[in-house]
Order: sequence, then structure tokens, then C-alpha cells
Amino acid sequence: MKRNRLSTKELIEGIQSGNRVVLSRAITLVESQQPGDIQQAEELLEAILPLTGNSFRLGITGVPGVGKSTFIESFGTLLTEKGKKLAVLTIDPSSQRSKGSILGDKTRMEELSRNPHAFIRPSASGSTLGGVSGKTREVMLLCEAAGYDFIIIETVGVGQSETHVHGMVDFFLLLMLAGAGDELQGIKKGIMEMADAVVINKADGDNIKAAKRAKVEYQNALHLFPANPSGWIPQVKTCSSLDKSGLEDVFQMLLKFQEQVRVNGYFDKNRSDQQVSWFKENLNELLKISFFRKPEVKKLYEQKLKEVQEGKIPALNAAHEVINAI
Amino acid sequence: MKRNRLSTKELIEGIQSGNRVVLSRAITLVESQQPGDIQQAEELLEAILPLTGNSFRLGITGVPGVGKSTFIESFGTLLTEKGKKLAVLTIDPSSQRSKGSILGDKTRMEELSRNPHAFIRPSASGSTLGGVSGKTREVMLLCEAAGYDFIIIETVGVGQSETHVHGMVDFFLLLMLAGAGDELQGIKKGIMEMADAVVINKADGDNIKAAKRAKVEYQNALHLFPANPSGWIPQVKTCSSLDKSGLEDVFQMLLKFQEQVRVNGYFDKNRSDQQVSWFKENLNELLKISFFRKPEVKKLYEQKLKEVQEGKIPALNAAHEVINAI
Repeated sequence: MKRNRLSTKELIEGIQSGNRVVLSRAITLVESQQPGDIQQAEELLEAILPLTGNSFRLGITGVPGVGKSTFIESFGTLLTEKGKKLAVLTIDPSSQRSKGSILGDKTRMEELSRNPHAFIRPSASGSTLGGVSGKTREVMLLCEAAGYDFIIIETVGVGQSETHVHGMVDFFLLLMLAGAGDELQGIKKGIMEMADAVVINKADGDNIKAAKRAKVEYQNALHLFPANPSGWIPQVKTCSSLDKSGLEDVFQMLLKFQEQVRVNGYFDKNRSDQQVSWFKENLNELLKISFFRKPEVKKLYEQKLKEVQEGKIPALNAAHEVINAI
Repeated sequence: MKRNRLSTKELIEGIQSGNRVVLSRAITLVESQQPGDIQQAEELLEAILPLTGNSFRLGITGVPGVGKSTFIESFGTLLTEKGKKLAVLTIDPSSQRSKGSILGDKTRMEELSRNPHAFIRPSASGSTLGGVSGKTREVMLLCEAAGYDFIIIETVGVGQSETHVHGMVDFFLLLMLAGAGDELQGIKKGIMEMADAVVINKADGDNIKAAKRAKVEYQNALHLFPANPSGWIPQVKTCSSLDKSGLEDVFQMLLKFQEQVRVNGYFDKNRSDQQVSWFKENLNELLKISFFRKPEVKKLYEQKLKEVQEGKIPALNAAHEVINAI
């Protein structure tokens, strides 16, 4: 059964009134690649823009098995208990191939998904615009317009998506485990460099001692990185999603961060810079897409690519030939 | 006094006959951004293409102070003693601003710069095409056409130029020092991941013991990285550019590498892949340049950029507006 298309006005009203079904449909619209949808999506985004920007945007990453879902479940529940409305957007680089893992995510956050103050949505990465981040930023705007004042963007800490997520959030949190000695090996150093906080999860039971040791090690490691442009000194915390210890501490840290960067002006500057980067990225992607969509470009490109592969023509010449011919 | 322009034919003949003055002028031509020069440069590159590809391309990186110049001086002298003709291209990210450092490089390799079998040329990075790597690849082709059978590309191991250099060489060598304990901190982990060999320099006098210890540490560290697509297992060597110890060992390692990757097919595959990447990079750069050169694009871009900065329009919409208007 085909659903009726909602008008932009209906979408805006539904979003503003906190209707989750309408919000979901608005997200689907924004993620769509149909030409008709793209136009309506832009109308919608433009209309809701004044309603956006009022959330705290938190990026969470960590290798598989670190307990991201249980952490978000526990921490998210704490947030809703404090009267916050929370949206969780999960970016799964593998979601294109294994739809199962999306469902997996949803059911893993069982408590949160039944919470009326929480909204969970997997964000298919790479499906649109060729970029890793897809339309996550636009989905975030829709959630803000719907009144969610805390947005968590979750990503798996193994790919390149972290840089993208880092470029769309206010605070970047790296979730880790106390391991067996080589604490720094599990995660790429570049990801650690971006972290505003390292939170060592599963600090409970027999693990507490190891977690405390790991905390010291991470603190030492973080000192070696260059200073953060926000003026914020990255923190290391321990917590347990199981017995809920340390979660309040993490929450207080976020409040402290917010206060500091709002006072020193970094908060607004960072958001403006992120918007500008996103504009430029989109522009470059769209330029490439509209260029390579032309059949005559496609044909010439394939031909020159073959010549370059076979060593018949210098790469630079081949590029010039394609550009000059169009 | 203005020099006469050499014809493409004169350039080709001069390069092939080993005339270093003509080679230098050909490099200047290829690095030029004058429209007339660009056309002649492409003619030249196309004409010499059959003469290229016969060198071994070696990338060398390391933090300032590690002794890159003295290593290249000593190792390069060894190569020429073995009957090799050597070209050294130094990429200095700061060369745009401080011409002094280029001259510094040249005079630092005093012995090599007087060697008739060696050719040293600083390659200004970022001057052309907006990319970090400038025209280094094309300069490399010219040197190959001139009969240089060993090309060393030197870069400072602090910026992003390493990835570019790694993408244009057959072997990537990371030069390090035995430090005081935290061996892995001096260089970004991502650079270590790319290395086919780590060579610990200044392993002489009181330093020998520390160098040997460092060697073990690096060997352990390299084991943690994912396997190299070439099938080559990264090596750790020690050497002294001062007392020339270990240099022969490095040379033998390169021979062994060459043999292995030529047999398993990686050598040719890697070169072909590098050419394809370079074609795509150039194409994307040229596309951007030709797009933003249009006055109407420039104007609209500036206008939309301002609107995005001020939060008046969503970034995605702004990008679409610029693309659709053109």
C-alpha cells in the first residue's frame, strides 16, 4: 500500500508537534535520491532552519565490542531522566550490505527504543552524495527541529567515518576498554587525536583495577597530542554501563565543556566552520556528480582511463584532455 | 636577459643526451603555470613517455633533524659508486615561503651536488594544481627519460605530503633516530604504517646501543600493522651516514624488495594503480579549477558562502543552488 505524500507544510507541522512518524518520514525524504524528493527535502530544510542548532551534538565512537550500544542505552536513559529529549543516529558503514546490523542496533537498545523521550534512527552511510556521512547532518537538523536537545551520533571506530562525525558534532567521545597492556593499539592514533574525552567502559567487577590503570595510561597518552583548538583539555573517565557508575560524571563533564566553549566563543565558531566545510564538501561532490553524469564525459573518461592504465598517455595529459574536451 | 625558448624537439634531444641544463629547463617548463607552457609541457611529456618507467623510485621521509640530507648524501654516493645514475627531488612544504631552505638543501648535499652522476632538484610543492604533490611525478618522468635509474623523493615527515609521496614511489623508507624511550611518538602512526622500511640513522659512537634497542622496538611495532599489499614484510635497519655503516645493507634490502615485487607482480600493478590515481586526482583538481574560474560561479559561491556562515541557508541547499545555477 503506497502512502500518501505529505506536503512540506504537513511535514513541518508534524515535526514541530513532536510526531515521530512524521519525523521518520521527513528523514526518509531527506535521505532519498529521487529528483522530486530532493527538491521537497530542500524546501523542508530551509523552512526548519530557524528551529535548528539548539541541541548538544555528541559523537561517540569505539571499536566493535567496546559496548557502544549498552553505553548509549544507559547514558541515554540518564539523559531522559534529567528531562532531556534524545535522538540517537547510528552510522553503520556496513549497513548497505547487511540490513541485519541495523535491526541489531535497534533491538540492542531495547530500553531506549521504548523510551518516549528517545528517538533512534540508523543513518545509512554512503548511500547519498558519495560521501561517507551521507545525510546525517540534515537528519540531525530535522531532529533538532523536532525538539530533541541532545543528539548522539554513533559510529564504528574502524573506518574513515570518524573524521566526518567529528566534523559534525560539538563533542567527540571515544569509548575504550581496559585491555591487556597495549592500550593504544586498538584504535587508530588519528581517532584518539580527535577525542575530547576517552571513556573506559565496562569498569565494573574484576575490571575496575585494569580500568583505573588504563585511565592513567590514556591520560599520559593524551598529553602527547597537540592542544585542542577549543582550549578544552581532553578528559579520561571510567564508567560501567552495567552498574551505571561514572555516567553522571560523564554528563557533568559535558556540561563543563559546554560552559567553557560557549564562554570562549569556540562553540559558535566551530559550528559555523562545520557548516562552511559541509557546504564546500557538498559543492565538490555535486560538481563531480553533475560532470560525470554527462554521457560524453563518461565515454571519454573510460577511454582515457584505459590509456593511462596501459601507460599510453601521461596521467596529467589525460586529465587535461577530458576537461578540455567538455 | 631572456633565454630563448627551446623547441620540444630540442628539449627531448637535450634530455636524452643527458644535458643537465636542458633537463633543468624542461622541469621548469613542466612546473610552469603559463598556458603556453602547459601545452608544450604536455607535448614533451607525451613524447618522452616511452623513455620512462625504468628507474627505481624511492621515497624517503623523516622528521627534521633526523639527518635526511646526510643520509641521502652518503647513500646516494654509494649508489653512484655502484654505477647508478641518481636524481634527488626534495619536496619542501615550506619552500613557497622560505626560498632559503631550498638553497639550504642543495648546499647540505655538497658532495652529491658535485657528483656528475647525481642530479638534485628541489620540487616546490603546492605551487601547481592545488595539490601537495605539485608536479613531482612529471619531474620524475623527465628524470627517467634523462637516464636516471634511481630516483629519490625526499619529504619532511611532518605534514600530509607523505601520503602523496607514498603514492608515487616503489618503496617508502622512513628515517628515524634512536630516541629516549618513547620511540613511537616522533612520527605519526599513519606514516609508519606506510613504511616499507624503518632505517635508524646516526647509529654510530655512543648511539649504537640505543639504535639496536630501537631496532627491536620498531620491529615489534611494525608487527602490529596490517600486512602490506605488496607481500613485503617491512624491515628495520640501522645505519650511520657518518661512518657509512649499514648503507650497503639498505641497498641490498632494496634489491631484494625489487626482486620480490617484480616476481609477484606487485611492482607493475602498483605503478599502474598509481597512474590511475594520479589521473583521477588531476581530473578532480582541474574540474574544480575550471569551474571556480568562471566569474559567475565565483560571485555566486561567495554569496552562498556568506549565507551559510551566517546560518541563513542550509549547507546542502547552498551547494545545490550554486550547481543548479550554472
